[in-house]
Amino acid sequence: MTSIQHEIRRGAYYDSVVLMQLQRALLELQGVEDAGVVMATAANMELLEDSGLLVSGLEPRPEDLLIVVKATSELMANEALAQVDAILKHRRSSATDAYRPRSLESAIKALPEAAWVLISIPGRYAAAVARQALDHGKHVFLYSDNVTLEDEVELKTTARERGLLLMGPDCGTAIIDGVGFGFANHVRRGAIGLVGASGTGLQAISSTIHQLGQGISHALGTGGRDLKGEVGAITAHQGLDLLAQDADTQVIVIVSKPPDAEVAASLLAAARGTGKPTVIDFIGYAPPVGRFDNLIFTTSLHETARAAVERVAAGLDERARRRHGGQRRPGYLRGLFAGGTLAMEAVRGLQAFVGPIHTNLTVPGAIRLDDPLVSTGHTVLDLGEDVFTVGRLHPMIDNDLRIRRMRQEANDEHVSLLLLDVVLGEGAHPDPASELGPAIEDVRQHSGVEVGVLLVGTEEDPQDIDHQREILEAAGAHVTGDTISLVAFAAETLEPGGETQWPTVSSTALSAPVAGINVGLETFYDSLISQGAAAVHVDWRPPAGGDDRLMDILSKMKTSRPDTE
Amino acid sequence: MTSIQHEIRRGAYYDSVVLMQLQRALLELQGVEDAGVVMATAANMELLEDSGLLVSGLEPRPEDLLIVVKATSELMANEALAQVDAILKHRRSSATDAYRPRSLESAIKALPEAAWVLISIPGRYAAAVARQALDHGKHVFLYSDNVTLEDEVELKTTARERGLLLMGPDCGTAIIDGVGFGFANHVRRGAIGLVGASGTGLQAISSTIHQLGQGISHALGTGGRDLKGEVGAITAHQGLDLLAQDADTQVIVIVSKPPDAEVAASLLAAARGTGKPTVIDFIGYAPPVGRFDNLIFTTSLHETARAAVERVAAGLDERARRRHGGQRRPGYLRGLFAGGTLAMEAVRGLQAFVGPIHTNLTVPGAIRLDDPLVSTGHTVLDLGEDVFTVGRLHPMIDNDLRIRRMRQEANDEHVSLLLLDVVLGEGAHPDPASELGPAIEDVRQHSGVEVGVLLVGTEEDPQDIDHQREILEAAGAHVTGDTISLVAFAAETLEPGGETQWPTVSSTALSAPVAGINVGLETFYDSLISQGAAAVHVDWRPPAGGDDRLMDILSKMKTSRPDTE
Repeated sequence: MTSIQHEIRRGAYYDSVVLMQLQRALLELQGVEDAGVVMATAANMELLEDSGLLVSGLEPRPEDLLIVVKATSELMANEALAQVDAILKHRRSSATDAYRPRSLESAIKALPEAAWVLISIPGRYAAAVARQALDHGKHVFLYSDNVTLEDEVELKTTARERGLLLMGPDCGTAIIDGVGFGFANHVRRGAIGLVGASGTGLQAISSTIHQLGQGISHALGTGGRDLKGEVGAITAHQGLDLLAQDADTQVIVIVSKPPDAEVAASLLAAARGTGKPTVIDFIGYAPPVGRFDNLIFTTSLHETARAAVERVAAGLDERARRRHGGQRRPGYLRGLFAGGTLAMEAVRGLQAFVGPIHTNLTVPGAIRLDDPLVSTGHTVLDLGEDVFTVGRLHPMIDNDLRIRRMRQEANDEHVSLLLLDVVLGEGAHPDPASELGPAIEDVRQHSGVEVGVLLVGTEEDPQDIDHQREILEAAGAHVTGDTISLVAFAAETLEPGGETQWPTVSSTALSAPVAGINVGLETFYDSLISQGAAAVHVDWRPPAGGDDRLMDILSKMKTSRPDTE
Repeated sequence: MTSIQHEIRRGAYYDSVVLMQLQRALLELQGVEDAGVVMATAANMELLEDSGLLVSGLEPRPEDLLIVVKATSELMANEALAQVDAILKHRRSSATDAYRPRSLESAIKALPEAAWVLISIPGRYAAAVARQALDHGKHVFLYSDNVTLEDEVELKTTARERGLLLMGPDCGTAIIDGVGFGFANHVRRGAIGLVGASGTGLQAISSTIHQLGQGISHALGTGGRDLKGEVGAITAHQGLDLLAQDADTQVIVIVSKPPDAEVAASLLAAARGTGKPTVIDFIGYAPPVGRFDNLIFTTSLHETARAAVERVAAGLDERARRRHGGQRRPGYLRGLFAGGTLAMEAVRGLQAFVGPIHTNLTVPGAIRLDDPLVSTGHTVLDLGEDVFTVGRLHPMIDNDLRIRRMRQEANDEHVSLLLLDVVLGEGAHPDPASELGPAIEDVRQHSGVEVGVLLVGTEEDPQDIDHQREILEAAGAHVTGDTISLVAFAAETLEPGGETQWPTVSSTALSAPVAGINVGLETFYDSLISQGAAAVHVDWRPPAGGDDRLMDILSKMKTSRPDTE
């Protein structure tokens, strides 16, 4: 009769490859119908239950190893469990005979030229090893997931201060000078450099670039959370900087889930600053523009690869030039729009290229104004919203509200730029420039603000569009015909936020020959060797044998020492 | 000495043009420095305060008219206020001498051929007039804002049942057979038909189309909330249907703020069903695809206009054909992905073209799964998420979890399609198809599900991509090389949700000559006349003289009558 038997190994540590191999070996034993070898987390227990492998009454701790065998009889099941130690021992004796230091220190002595440490041990141990690697001046490829956001911020802040790269945590892929770390496809060397918070995104793009006949200079993963506000894209900024300076990289690709608004604006500013054509796929994020200076926005991985290859083909001559505009001004912008959709498109562009925008519209990433009557920071208002139009004509007909608000905004000493839309056509004010023009002239002269106007209409509209444009320009406004030109004007007019300068990332990051120390999954070591890179695998064991209490004490002893390095 | 004096007119109704004109007339009086004439809402009171026009101690009701005058002396201010009635009277006597019926009924008798009623009276009165117009079998252009969502749903449901269009509320623009309603630019007649929940969006696109040398067949506004879940895009669906059948319309444009996911999927399905090239700008919404059958996605108003003009130029030959695939199947899909980014791109595509997706990823519009171990409806899982990888290898290395889950999903009788990704390269499983292939064959044979696989890699990868593809295809899987092809396969495989058939919109909506009855802003009447359309302006007054209590009683008497029309 079918029987399910189990064994719990309290606090035992084995790497995941060993667990997979143990499960497979058990399945091959006589009479065994199914087997599960898992760390006893709640999710894994539920998965065992779904597979009909749960023994009731079990209460293991999440850090315990649970081995379950389902066999044709109780005897068979118990016989299989009795083999576990032999299987684990056999597995170990079959390991290669390469030198396997037991500590990171010994590994570094054995391969001092290694610029990289690859870490793929379980998350709860990973941050400590990464910290150690940084202390030794090594760049880190941190594959491990289940690392806390706090640890990530601390590790990346440390890395940045020391001019080191910390890719990850949960970084699936990288290609450094032709050598793949973690998961990486075999792709041609070429002129396109990638940086991304998206492992399979980088893989799909690099594979497609290869299929289209181009190749990769370097591909730098950052870990999936790098572009979150808390992390501030530390690694993406470093990666972008490396690729900007790398002579082999002609075109840059950035791929990530949609970043936080502030992070997006600073990263896009940095991307513009590289001066290299840069293709951006913030998956599901669509700025109101296909191209902006040297930036090209795409909405799918496939299209991203294609656009990057096309940019390489276009060659040097077609490269976008960095703009060197006139004098830039500190201060905030205030957008006073009559058209809701125009305001929305402006918000989406401005938050990408200027910074976070406060608004009475609902736009992902923008900050909702508590009170639309009070502006703060960069603010864009839709003055046609219901709250403004009770018993009052729409601002496309009646300019009174807008002119009052213009004066109010211009009186705010922190404001240096006003943006307006003027929409012509049937139903609209018969001559808006005749009222807005003098107001523009007035605020420019008395408050020194610049004014940008988006003018919408045709030469057949009753207001005479050329005449309207002339009046607005004579009043000193910069007049554009589409939203993105207005956004570009704003980006060129306002001073970018002060960027802190960090140490340049050590050139060892991308320089050949690639050498690495591997802590964790042996397959990643095998992969480095098979790609011709120098590598040492550390026969890593958790500190204190994986005992939580002891580990906690050890870690407290460490963090309480004075930070004297 | 400067003095501020005021007058409150309790519950008085004047249309907004009159209020604007009164304010301007007051400003021209001797000694007057500033003046405000507003309905006394909280927002308007705050605006008065900002202009230094607030008299303290005032407590008007929001429905009261507040007239404030700031003058060089108390005498001057009071003299100005004393002129108010004379100004209002003068204004009236200067009106044109065209026939001005006092009721909608009389107007309809005077212009029975009018297919349209344009309504721009204050929001709290507007729904009742719209209802009246629908009762008379008229299409409605409802410019008024401040109409409740409940009223909108009720009005549109009624309109749909009767084959009538109700554009709005808060519908800023429309062009019907060359005649602009509300705000509309003078644009060339042409081959592009627009439908949109975005007034200035429609204006900007139609103006740009004109500037690029093409023109507009019809432009149909829907009101800004039409694509919300509560409304279900009733008007957009009707508009799309009209444009699909309109012989003059060769290319369709849809513009809207990002719709709710379910609404987007149904509207995109309808757009595919038109068979006409359709350019879609769901502002800020970017499906993982530039084109999908006859649909072209854009991310800015300017690009939308350009794409539409290009599609007309491409002509009939290049029109996308409607697909007529093989047999479709009812049921749900389950996507089991190893790559997080690939899963995310798939979710974004599937929710656009298949329907709402449950997922353990954070994707705008998608439904977050409570428990990633339990699928429901259409579900897409990232099996590489932290919860799945504690003490277990990543699914790109270890197929065990995925194969178990495939079996579990296939056993769900509501499931008819499984989607997988297979990512090759360094670090990944050395031969994934050897394990996934048999599992695919098994679930196809035993559960009758279809299987689609996204295969990522290059021919230089260690796994031999051609061999992997062969095994997967031999097992019966449909293998694609990019996400959007996988999404297309899913959309072609699954049966679309049952669409209810509604009465066709009466052809009077778009047929010439355009004739309309105007209730509200006189400028809209003037505009119809100046464009050569037949029109009658109703000299509308609020029921019960705008008295809320009386209006309430009247409205209750109306709604309690049996619905016998």
